Amino acid sequence: MLNHPDRYFPVEPTVRAIARQLYDGIADLPLVCPHGHTNPEWFAKNEPFTDPAQLMIVPDHYIFRMLVSQGIDMDALGVPRLDGGEVEADGRTIWRLFAANYHLFRGTPTRSWLDHTFEHLFGLSEPLSPATADKYYDTVADALTTAEFRPRALFERFNIHTLATTESALDDLAHHRAIRDSGWSGRVVTTYRPDAVLDPDFDGFDENLDKLDDITGADTGTWGGYLEAHRIRRGFFRDHGATATDHGMPSAETANLSPTEAAALFDRIRSGQADEVEIDLFRAQMMTEMAKMSAEDGMVMQIHPGSVRNHNAAVFAARGRDMGFDIPARTEFTHALKPMLDAVGMEPKLSVILFMLDETTLGRELAPLAGAYPCLKLGPPWWFFDSIEGMTRFREVVTETAGFYNTVGFNDDTRAFPSIPARHDVARRVDCAYLARLVADHRLREDEAHEVDRDLTFNLPKQAYRY
Amino acid sequence: MLNHPDRYFPVEPTVRAIARQLYDGIADLPLVCPHGHTNPEWFAKNEPFTDPAQLMIVPDHYIFRMLVSQGIDMDALGVPRLDGGEVEADGRTIWRLFAANYHLFRGTPTRSWLDHTFEHLFGLSEPLSPATADKYYDTVADALTTAEFRPRALFERFNIHTLATTESALDDLAHHRAIRDSGWSGRVVTTYRPDAVLDPDFDGFDENLDKLDDITGADTGTWGGYLEAHRIRRGFFRDHGATATDHGMPSAETANLSPTEAAALFDRIRSGQADEVEIDLFRAQMMTEMAKMSAEDGMVMQIHPGSVRNHNAAVFAARGRDMGFDIPARTEFTHALKPMLDAVGMEPKLSVILFMLDETTLGRELAPLAGAYPCLKLGPPWWFFDSIEGMTRFREVVTETAGFYNTVGFNDDTRAFPSIPARHDVARRVDCAYLARLVADHRLREDEAHEVDRDLTFNLPKQAYRY
Amino acid sequence: MLNHPDRYFPVEPTVRAIARQLYDGIADLPLVCPHGHTNPEWFAKNEPFTDPAQLMIVPDHYIFRMLVSQGIDMDALGVPRLDGGEVEADGRTIWRLFAANYHLFRGTPTRSWLDHTFEHLFGLSEPLSPATADKYYDTVADALTTAEFRPRALFERFNIHTLATTESALDDLAHHRAIRDSGWSGRVVTTYRPDAVLDPDFDGFDENLDKLDDITGADTGTWGGYLEAHRIRRGFFRDHGATATDHGMPSAETANLSPTEAAALFDRIRSGQADEVEIDLFRAQMMTEMAKMSAEDGMVMQIHPGSVRNHNAAVFAARGRDMGFDIPARTEFTHALKPMLDAVGMEPKLSVILFMLDETTLGRELAPLAGAYPCLKLGPPWWFFDSIEGMTRFREVVTETAGFYNTVGFNDDTRAFPSIPARHDVARRVDCAYLARLVADHRLREDEAHEVDRDLTFNLPKQAYRY
Repeated sequence: MLNHPDRYFPVEPTVRAIARQLYDGIADLPLVCPHGHTNPEWFAKNEPFTDPAQLMIVPDHYIFRMLVSQGIDMDALGVPRLDGGEVEADGRTIWRLFAANYHLFRGTPTRSWLDHTFEHLFGLSEPLSPATADKYYDTVADALTTAEFRPRALFERFNIHTLATTESALDDLAHHRAIRDSGWSGRVVTTYRPDAVLDPDFDGFDENLDKLDDITGADTGTWGGYLEAHRIRRGFFRDHGATATDHGMPSAETANLSPTEAAALFDRIRSGQADEVEIDLFRAQMMTEMAKMSAEDGMVMQIHPGSVRNHNAAVFAARGRDMGFDIPARTEFTHALKPMLDAVGMEPKLSVILFMLDETTLGRELAPLAGAYPCLKLGPPWWFFDSIEGMTRFREVVTETAGFYNTVGFNDDTRAFPSIPARHDVARRVDCAYLARLVADHRLREDEAHEVDRDLTFNLPKQAYRY
Repeated sequence: MLNHPDRYFPVEPTVRAIARQLYDGIADLPLVCPHGHTNPEWFAKNEPFTDPAQLMIVPDHYIFRMLVSQGIDMDALGVPRLDGGEVEADGRTIWRLFAANYHLFRGTPTRSWLDHTFEHLFGLSEPLSPATADKYYDTVADALTTAEFRPRALFERFNIHTLATTESALDDLAHHRAIRDSGWSGRVVTTYRPDAVLDPDFDGFDENLDKLDDITGADTGTWGGYLEAHRIRRGFFRDHGATATDHGMPSAETANLSPTEAAALFDRIRSGQADEVEIDLFRAQMMTEMAKMSAEDGMVMQIHPGSVRNHNAAVFAARGRDMGFDIPARTEFTHALKPMLDAVGMEPKLSVILFMLDETTLGRELAPLAGAYPCLKLGPPWWFFDSIEGMTRFREVVTETAGFYNTVGFNDDTRAFPSIPARHDVARRVDCAYLARLVADHRLREDEAHEVDRDLTFNLPKQAYRY
Repeated sequence: MLNHPDRYFPVEPTVRAIARQLYDGIADLPLVCPHGHTNPEWFAKNEPFTDPAQLMIVPDHYIFRMLVSQGIDMDALGVPRLDGGEVEADGRTIWRLFAANYHLFRGTPTRSWLDHTFEHLFGLSEPLSPATADKYYDTVADALTTAEFRPRALFERFNIHTLATTESALDDLAHHRAIRDSGWSGRVVTTYRPDAVLDPDFDGFDENLDKLDDITGADTGTWGGYLEAHRIRRGFFRDHGATATDHGMPSAETANLSPTEAAALFDRIRSGQADEVEIDLFRAQMMTEMAKMSAEDGMVMQIHPGSVRNHNAAVFAARGRDMGFDIPARTEFTHALKPMLDAVGMEPKLSVILFMLDETTLGRELAPLAGAYPCLKLGPPWWFFDSIEGMTRFREVVTETAGFYNTVGFNDDTRAFPSIPARHDVARRVDCAYLARLVADHRLREDEAHEVDRDLTFNLPKQAYRY
């Protein structure tokens, strides 16, 4: 057995019994997946996944960055090179290398997610090791050939209520249309992610704005036209199920310039002459513009700040984005959000979900902000903090100031489709463990804990993302 | 029963038993309340409190900010408007709205304080809910009409050793004189809070200095006269029982200018021409001046930095100060305090108590500072951190570097007089729980834990505030 | 009994039993001591230690800063004055003062280390107090006269695998040569600590560079000669067993100037005309130069940033360095290390061990960096965080992102030779407790925990420091 039924629950028998009871009450609730990076093409085409390594290792930067950190070469892991240079292509070879280093993941959430997936999805019960590597590989490879492991079948087996993907503002959303037109009952929606046409530092920003012009017919050479183009694309995304936008910014800075100042700033940006300060200011202004549009059109705004992307120059040059070398940095919210909040912070239709990669902001800034502003909610612990200890600290630090009802439940935020049930299961167990401790030391009655648990698991994400 | 006798104690039976024994040894010690915001008029006039909502909900920003964060309007909660516009005036209506949303406080200290107050003060034992709202309202309203619920009777029933209020430097302290002259035995003292005449950003700063001139006869048009006016007022406050001063500054910055530089800076400030940098520097210089006066007159200096007051422009414009929209920001102590500490840090009569709203400073800066400088002590976790988890983290992070004896016990820091016993009780339980864990894993002997517990509960606050 | 056999283990019986089993498996492994500040002269000359107070109190800034923080004068503790002024010289008097204040250390690691040393090294089993002060003093003083308490005998009794001391780049390493030439089997190695010839703010920097010129024959008046001098000294240190360098910098800043820029900067520094910005930049550039040399010569590079040294001007003037008034400040790694990591971050021979005094960087910056870059490893919690709670938080925050294998086990980092076994024992117990919790809530199998435990205790430090 790879996964003990009481895993992640407190050890003290009284508390463990409470946690188990809580868990029994919510374990089978549908998965609400309002933020993630799965590929809609999978559900549009419903073709089988193929190679176990290509499914579970090569695209997962949680996995390969850890292997790289111990001196293993990305080539040997099959991670593609931008120059098309040769990398390991044999799935079994990659899998064996991974298995030989599986001990590196001890104590990490990756290990929890994988062991859950191995056992619950593929029926494997011996630990992964060099001795079992081939058995693992064969078992997974065989399963992937069957109808039960096609994307839509897995979606249904996972009991997913709604799955949101994330697309660039320039995406034609053809896969989402195909899913809708197919008559399949699975609910897969898109999310409006305009970084490529909003962040002047994004690769090809200027050409992206030209494309946006082509797509929308709005004149992205002017500030007014540029904003109109956003409005048009937001509508287009809403037509494809989107209820939310998402913004991956270096910081949480916002600004609230006058229309004249903003137009002048946009001209500087569009001229390609803007300096770093102007670029920062433009991103900050655009956060407020996006919030204003959300206050009108009701799209939930997600802000994901604080990652220094592509930290290593050589890795970025050789492999490109999302290669495990994104490193968080100090983030500030109290001063940064004030301009936006002064502008639209009390607007009744506005809902902004804040994420962080800097835990120091949780108790000091985020919980006090979410515990006062009606428009603000706190997203779950993100990325490096989507973990047992990370989620536990989140609840311990946030709840006393913001309560439970200014949080929004779990996001799996993953490209790794097979791991979605595992990720939700870990989150559910951590919430049950936390609630059980509150019951056991008499901070909460047991009936309340059950109600809160269902809210955290199902009702809050559903409401927060307006499903 | 709303309050389990073992609440907040560790669940493991061995540790819980130790915690309970520790608690039995200190539960009945008198309450030392050296920092708070109750109204001295209550004890001067000893008139009955009236409306339950006006006593317990409307003035408590912990409560109404949480309700506001979930979209409830301040008007409906009876929070007054500066323009005198109409707000809900019916206490029962406000109370029902509160009861309908009591679930929002699950897992918060407000819930702990209220349930304790409801049961121990008012004898209520069913949970507050829409169904019990009227019963609660009537019970509290009835109690308030009785002699046992008058301010002085409650003070005595609460077993308060000393209660410090906080008054502006310009206050005439008439209520404190009235209390003293009344012959009542309750010890209610004032605290010197000079923000209004020390912080150039304070509303009406310039007029406040003119008033200070009138009151003291010192010429607040000159640096020397201004300092003399502070000395005079500090003496006046000491005559009304004050043993401490209190300073609510945006940051912990201090400065140590030469007398000539300081005088020139004061002239700039007094001219109304000073820029932000000069205003910051003036506040910083005044912290050192206050410390120098404390080193002479022996008043304990409390510094409360790090809150960004009145974060939302619209709420501030409509309702004024203290409306739940004060949000902490990053604070720095190591560099900030150095000028003051170089000036007077080794003075034997000086005692400075540091508070924080940025927990990251506890282990990194505050514990090392308090664990070295004889003049520095650490105040208890403040505001958002006056909570079970907040106090637990404080002890876990601070003790290993600063020990117990560089901390000063608990401050209830509240306007909510009926909740004072509840707040002390939570703090005492958390300390017992922490000490019990140290005993159970053999870091501390049980006899030592009992001694430390009595020190934390009674001796340290009494000594720290020189009662 | 001063030390319970189950101390620092979780209280819950199941977890405690696992922790005890884990501990039994590693308790007797040899001590690897790769970073510390013991005096090599002790092992070269092997003369008896003398006065208990001079051995255990006077040189230990953990101890005397705590006593000073409670108003005890350094003179009374025998801490030497730079002006040669009289201080307490009687060991027994100092010892009694210490004993009378031993309660100040309740809940601190100093208490743990001392009680362990008292009982396990000196056979004392009653608590230290005023009543037992003389018995303690006599027992320790008597022991120190015996052969078993000479430095080499203790070294062997402590079962030390390797002990690294830390010497200035200008040190002649005569004691290390004497140890080697003596034929004694104990392995005592040096560490290259070039702060005095690398940090322009170091006392006597310019003269130190002249000395470096004399010693090496390289022309430290030129950038090229200066770098060559470092290379020569690094080689000399390697000849005396050094496998590592150590760098105590105010910040973690690095830079990667072109050779021409670097040479010009060096000229400014050498001219004595450099301003603060240039001095910062020079230190930053030198971190990259040291890393480049490490990538060539294989010496492990240790970076210890973030301490504001000699915080109190008066104490520094009267007593000098290392007087307990070093206070941590906020530290940044993500941006700071990027220039160095862009230059040499993927070099296979490079190993950099990062230490911190700012715990906020652990989850946000250090674990993500160490969990990606092959050259980076995380040193154990340092100084104020070398404690039960500090080490526990370290594992809880770091492991989920960086795993166990990007950490390097324990460093005792001490001048207090008799306390070395105590310090390792606390660290081992904390790791066992942490691992036991992972086993008990089914994050780790028990066989894995035993393997990890041996790695953390012995294999990782041995490998990390290339012993």
